[in-house]
Amino acid sequence: MTQDKENQSGKKGLSRRDFMKTTGGMAAVAGLSGGGLLLGAKSAGAVEMPKKWDEEFDVVIIGSGFAGLAAAIEAKKAGSSVVILEKMRVPGGNSIINGGLIAGAGTPLQDKEGIKDSADTMYQDMLKAGLGINHPELARIVCEKSAETIMWTVEDLGVVYKERVTHLGGHAVPRSYYTTNSSGAGIVRPMLDRARSLGLDVRTAMYLERFFKDEDGRIKGVKIRSGYVFPRADSGKAKLIKARKAVVLATGGFGFDVPFRTIQDPRLTAEIDCTNQPGATADGLIQALQTGATPVQLSWIQLGPWASPDEKGMGIGYIFAISAAFPYGFMVDPKTGQRFVDELADRKTRADAILKTGHFAIGIADEKGVKRTAMLDKMVERGIVKKFPNLEALAAEYDINEPGLRETVEKYNAYLKKGKDDEFGRPFQSDAKPVENPPYYAMRLWPKVHHTMGGIQIDKESRVISMARQPIKGLYAAGEVCGGVHGAVRLGSNATVECLVFGRIAGKSAANQDVWT
Amino acid sequence: MTQDKENQSGKKGLSRRDFMKTTGGMAAVAGLSGGGLLLGAKSAGAVEMPKKWDEEFDVVIIGSGFAGLAAAIEAKKAGSSVVILEKMRVPGGNSIINGGLIAGAGTPLQDKEGIKDSADTMYQDMLKAGLGINHPELARIVCEKSAETIMWTVEDLGVVYKERVTHLGGHAVPRSYYTTNSSGAGIVRPMLDRARSLGLDVRTAMYLERFFKDEDGRIKGVKIRSGYVFPRADSGKAKLIKARKAVVLATGGFGFDVPFRTIQDPRLTAEIDCTNQPGATADGLIQALQTGATPVQLSWIQLGPWASPDEKGMGIGYIFAISAAFPYGFMVDPKTGQRFVDELADRKTRADAILKTGHFAIGIADEKGVKRTAMLDKMVERGIVKKFPNLEALAAEYDINEPGLRETVEKYNAYLKKGKDDEFGRPFQSDAKPVENPPYYAMRLWPKVHHTMGGIQIDKESRVISMARQPIKGLYAAGEVCGGVHGAVRLGSNATVECLVFGRIAGKSAANQDVWT
Repeated sequence: MTQDKENQSGKKGLSRRDFMKTTGGMAAVAGLSGGGLLLGAKSAGAVEMPKKWDEEFDVVIIGSGFAGLAAAIEAKKAGSSVVILEKMRVPGGNSIINGGLIAGAGTPLQDKEGIKDSADTMYQDMLKAGLGINHPELARIVCEKSAETIMWTVEDLGVVYKERVTHLGGHAVPRSYYTTNSSGAGIVRPMLDRARSLGLDVRTAMYLERFFKDEDGRIKGVKIRSGYVFPRADSGKAKLIKARKAVVLATGGFGFDVPFRTIQDPRLTAEIDCTNQPGATADGLIQALQTGATPVQLSWIQLGPWASPDEKGMGIGYIFAISAAFPYGFMVDPKTGQRFVDELADRKTRADAILKTGHFAIGIADEKGVKRTAMLDKMVERGIVKKFPNLEALAAEYDINEPGLRETVEKYNAYLKKGKDDEFGRPFQSDAKPVENPPYYAMRLWPKVHHTMGGIQIDKESRVISMARQPIKGLYAAGEVCGGVHGAVRLGSNATVECLVFGRIAGKSAANQDVWT
Repeated sequence: MTQDKENQSGKKGLSRRDFMKTTGGMAAVAGLSGGGLLLGAKSAGAVEMPKKWDEEFDVVIIGSGFAGLAAAIEAKKAGSSVVILEKMRVPGGNSIINGGLIAGAGTPLQDKEGIKDSADTMYQDMLKAGLGINHPELARIVCEKSAETIMWTVEDLGVVYKERVTHLGGHAVPRSYYTTNSSGAGIVRPMLDRARSLGLDVRTAMYLERFFKDEDGRIKGVKIRSGYVFPRADSGKAKLIKARKAVVLATGGFGFDVPFRTIQDPRLTAEIDCTNQPGATADGLIQALQTGATPVQLSWIQLGPWASPDEKGMGIGYIFAISAAFPYGFMVDPKTGQRFVDELADRKTRADAILKTGHFAIGIADEKGVKRTAMLDKMVERGIVKKFPNLEALAAEYDINEPGLRETVEKYNAYLKKGKDDEFGRPFQSDAKPVENPPYYAMRLWPKVHHTMGGIQIDKESRVISMARQPIKGLYAAGEVCGGVHGAVRLGSNATVECLVFGRIAGKSAANQDVWT
């Protein structure tokens, strides 16, 4: 309950000024309150330690995506014994099926093209997209280490990138390196090779069941299920693994976890698909929260507005949306035949607008609009994008209000002609042409869960911060399981760099942790 | 990590379609994953039970605001022995200094004025303000029980309201009852009397240090500090209180807890004041999270855009803002002298816009604009609102860009004349007059934290839901410590009714819980 009007009861000796006097003001209150909490929270989540462990390592890493592998490589190079535990049957998590784009500020490729960029410019881009709620110190580190991290993937891992940087939405300048095979596999596979060269293999089908946190508040090991068959938490055989130095949690986001994500955003039911691999559940995150980690911004979940409901996951239809319908055509609500949002607004604005219609939106472009669209034939062949001789046929196929659609085409072409979108203020491409040249192409659009910005709280050393506002000794985390780096909205290609930057930090920090006895 | 482009590695046997085959699709995955979590999470947060308790009651209630008192009254009426524990020196929490407004749909006062309203209309208002992320079943209950709850305060508690319902922003119709003394004290004091008539007194200076959760996962009591002196968590004497049936958590929001709120929204530093009483910290919420409760939408924190930095807390300056500057004048950025937002937009839009300026905004109205403003002399006397013979003097006082301000006044008056705000689309009051009649009045504006929408997850019976997606036996919660009811943004006067509705439900549910032995 809060105060919606003046404190009338002030006269009765309950005024805020009295409160302030007795407490010495807000900052002091909060400070003391924070400190005070240590008492109650000290051994929160502590459990009995096993009499005997099945195995032991200096550093136990949970997860084998970008973050987990980066942590493993650094911890091993620092001289620690390391084990990598992956719950799925294959290593790589979402990273291996990611787009293979990684952002960096002040890189050789930018220099080559004469692109002026800096860590601060990238930082400002992240804050703007993040609506200012990013954890500043975390976002800054990602930017400052972005260029050297890309060079590390080239020099230490042998990752091969395309010749030019890509310009993605929300970034002030082109700054995204792009793997030659256009996939995160182009980074994950060299990481797996590098790990192997250090004597490290990923143990798959190993599920984190719980942390062992001792009375002294230190994480000293984990209980896992060996031979786990996703998603059956009762599968596999229990195994106790001691972490002499630390555990690094790198279990990724929870985009695929319908029950958990609907708690944070009830709109994201099973009706809404996800671009992630099915292993992207909240299990690891929940274990961390149950051992005392602090939840950060869990309700900020990113949806991709460019997704097609006519294929599973990320698919390929989004290529038509981002290269044709959005920049060279438009998107309409079939019920009215009218546009309803700036087709080039940020992901959140567009996804929310489509969800609000309560049904699918239709993305439309004409012959000239698809000039730059790769894989068009494949999309048409799969029935994700459809081709029409005229607008009548297009309207009939998707049951679009036809007069509305005709009016929309006229208005759109008029706006384009005068270079001003009176309805939604959308910017026009310099080479955009009126939509009037058959054949016409169209696709259904319905957002899919793409990234979870929230997670557990970490500090600059990747230490997991407890709700007592202290690091949880022996526990580090990196990647999408952490929250705060991206704030409200993540920019494309920033996740890859975040995972590598904090994965490396976590690995080094864990290796520097003292051994408990 | 998520996938920003097509899954090129599909050819390498890692396509999502393969994943889907092996898992049988998202819903199945999520379901199983959810169920599977029970294993790991069952006894999460369990601690050793005390050998001996200092005291025992059927129902132990933490907090003495609207929610705690409503729960106490209902549990006691249902025949349970009850104790109410309040950490501050005085009972009432924020409720006793709240505005005394409570929303209800389909009430006698509405009928008297011929106002058509329904639970569904109120529900739609909440969803709209909440950006659709409200927990639907919780929001609906508040609406459905709103009218009967107001009648309960009248008939069972003897609360006295003004003769007419008030129309607050975001509500489709006038539906807010208003206590005659314009304060929540007008409801809390009758509740305290009612409790006393049932033999219940509030024990003040009693701080919740921890829950006792047994191996069976049931909350069986609490450790408190008796004689606690806020905010020193090490003050007072430890005491163990057994809860034979259940504990009801009603500790309110965390608006005053700078360390905790900045984790969720780093912009909300100590530089930003709070309209709450200083006891509004996250201590109770954190104890619940540490015992396994599920965090819900913690990063949605509401700021009041009508607040003055020249007084502490809620103060009185907001009256000038909401009754003069916003409806009959305007708000400018002193650096430019220009307006920067629709002065009648929702709280979040306006507060974010003021924060974005990085400094104070100035609210301005002229002689005609303050016609309806109560307590104007008091505000001027306190120096919160200042009076000027002309715009030059006003600009000089606040170091406002004067040419900019002159231009703004001309533009504003022109918009008003043609009835259209070309810049921000702000609606004009039918009785608004051009700003041109000295003396001029102005105040500084800087948002203050007002309400925390997020909290722990509860179900329709006020049972606290664990991260294993099961009720935590023996633990109920109600009021601002819970999340989901209001979603992203709370409407004025909805907190009071929420607290009373779920407080009563929690009290009844707790009383119906079986006694453990």
